[in-house]
Amino acid sequence: MKYRIDNLQYCNWSRDIFQINREANLDAVHVTLVYHEDYNEFIQRTKEWKKFFNENSDLIFLGKSFKDIEKAKLEKKTAIFFGFQNCSPIEDNIALVEKVHEHGCRFMQLTYNNQSLLATGCYEKNDSGVTNFGREAIKEMNRVGIVIDMSHSAEKSTFDAIEISEKPIAITHANPSFWFKAIRNKSNDLLKTLGSSGGMLGLSLYPHHLKDGSNCTLESFCEMTAKTAEVMGVKNIGIGSDLCINHPDSVVDWMRNGTWSKNKNYGEGSKNKPGFPKQPDWFLDARGFNNLEISLKKIGFNEDEINGILGNNWYNFYKGIN
Amino acid sequence: MKYRIDNLQYCNWSRDIFQINREANLDAVHVTLVYHEDYNEFIQRTKEWKKFFNENSDLIFLGKSFKDIEKAKLEKKTAIFFGFQNCSPIEDNIALVEKVHEHGCRFMQLTYNNQSLLATGCYEKNDSGVTNFGREAIKEMNRVGIVIDMSHSAEKSTFDAIEISEKPIAITHANPSFWFKAIRNKSNDLLKTLGSSGGMLGLSLYPHHLKDGSNCTLESFCEMTAKTAEVMGVKNIGIGSDLCINHPDSVVDWMRNGTWSKNKNYGEGSKNKPGFPKQPDWFLDARGFNNLEISLKKIGFNEDEINGILGNNWYNFYKGIN
Repeated sequence: MKYRIDNLQYCNWSRDIFQINREANLDAVHVTLVYHEDYNEFIQRTKEWKKFFNENSDLIFLGKSFKDIEKAKLEKKTAIFFGFQNCSPIEDNIALVEKVHEHGCRFMQLTYNNQSLLATGCYEKNDSGVTNFGREAIKEMNRVGIVIDMSHSAEKSTFDAIEISEKPIAITHANPSFWFKAIRNKSNDLLKTLGSSGGMLGLSLYPHHLKDGSNCTLESFCEMTAKTAEVMGVKNIGIGSDLCINHPDSVVDWMRNGTWSKNKNYGEGSKNKPGFPKQPDWFLDARGFNNLEISLKKIGFNEDEINGILGNNWYNFYKGIN
Repeated sequence: MKYRIDNLQYCNWSRDIFQINREANLDAVHVTLVYHEDYNEFIQRTKEWKKFFNENSDLIFLGKSFKDIEKAKLEKKTAIFFGFQNCSPIEDNIALVEKVHEHGCRFMQLTYNNQSLLATGCYEKNDSGVTNFGREAIKEMNRVGIVIDMSHSAEKSTFDAIEISEKPIAITHANPSFWFKAIRNKSNDLLKTLGSSGGMLGLSLYPHHLKDGSNCTLESFCEMTAKTAEVMGVKNIGIGSDLCINHPDSVVDWMRNGTWSKNKNYGEGSKNKPGFPKQPDWFLDARGFNNLEISLKKIGFNEDEINGILGNNWYNFYKGIN
């Protein structure tokens, strides 16, 4: 079977985008519900999604397990899996891990860019690793079936999470730093450990994670994919596009600043480039999966490998969540 | 002028305790309102205190600045200063620093025992120091006039806080580790740096911080006081008794566990000694200040020094808060 999965999108959701994802044949998308929101605000987000599901039931439905990816394929729909880019919805309460799972959460980052109660983010000066509460949260996430996502975490914290978690973890959206040295991209050492522990890396199409940014070439991206497969194994790579289609710049401002600072932080941007960067022309939206398919073939991947990278690897990973 | 100040109490408040504090001639007490509570729960605590102030207006009132210590002295009352043992009331929102100050907060620990969003607690394995949000919070606490309290913080975080803060910081309740090696007690290096930066140490009478625990002798405590004065300066020492009178053991359980763990943590206690420890017989409550006064004289402190340790040093420190 051939599944297509984009394991990270955070778009300004509308029927148009759900249609684009269907045109791209996406059977599943992991969508971000939360950056800095607390539990009640997360619940509010789920209500907004309920409306999306009702109004677009011909295109999407809430995914809860790998079986919903199979169902989506059969029904020509996209299963939507909920995730958080921060642990803010569980607040300081271990009991909320089970609660957010009940409301659909299947992926949770232990940190966004800053220190959280669970671990250290990649924008901090020092990284103390997974905290006391973090150990408890990982155990509970393993138990209820929420994937530990370390996309925005610092390195020691990520090594810790791999070691502590009894189930494989994910970096849903990032690239290797050998290709482009962004703070958010990951070292070979880390990717090797991730791969050998059964974890997944979702390759990102967000320009700040790409060599040459918005001008990154499709060939360069696919060469990077080939080298990454050598580092961590071709079965441990997928796509986590990090598409943020149709958002105003105020949204990236919220992502980066939340409410923690009186000064403006530009994260991966800069004072001169404060907003969302332009997508490369070969990946303006999820229909870029077709370009990836063609170009991955050109570079020498076989069909099985390409299907793995574009969805089947994530599908297999989802099988192990529960 | 001779002021008497206990710069940390967390009792099960009642008129009896306010009367005991008056019998001890306390002109000011810094009281803990919050261990793990969020902003709204803190506001609830202030309402409970409003009731205490109304019903015991002959004994106590809300203290907002050092002038209220002078007023308390004149009126033979105790000025009550609000503080937090954790930063949970400011949640992840820098704007709440000003808000909690408006509602009376004058001391805030950057951490309780665990990692917080601001810094690392003394019960964590690794200490990454003050975080990005922590730097912002310290700046804002300096601006509005909330003292940075590092009683329950790890060492590097405390050094960081001293360096980052433009105003002297406090360790409101702890003892030197040269005397008793509790996780909560502090190294000479740290105490030296604290003293030379104008910061204050409030010596604790909580048995888990005392040599020989509940059986600690008054003489031993006063000898420790003399040595601590040599280390960090006699003007930088006060009392922060950490009295927790009349609380049921469920309260220490809440303090240690909050909501972050499904397993029970015993903090400074142990499985065999899970509850509050017994106070030493020479400091059953604040009236023990009299025993301290007598014994500090015996050990060779002069009157000025004794008055400094038992209150005037804190009074002078309060002058610098705003």
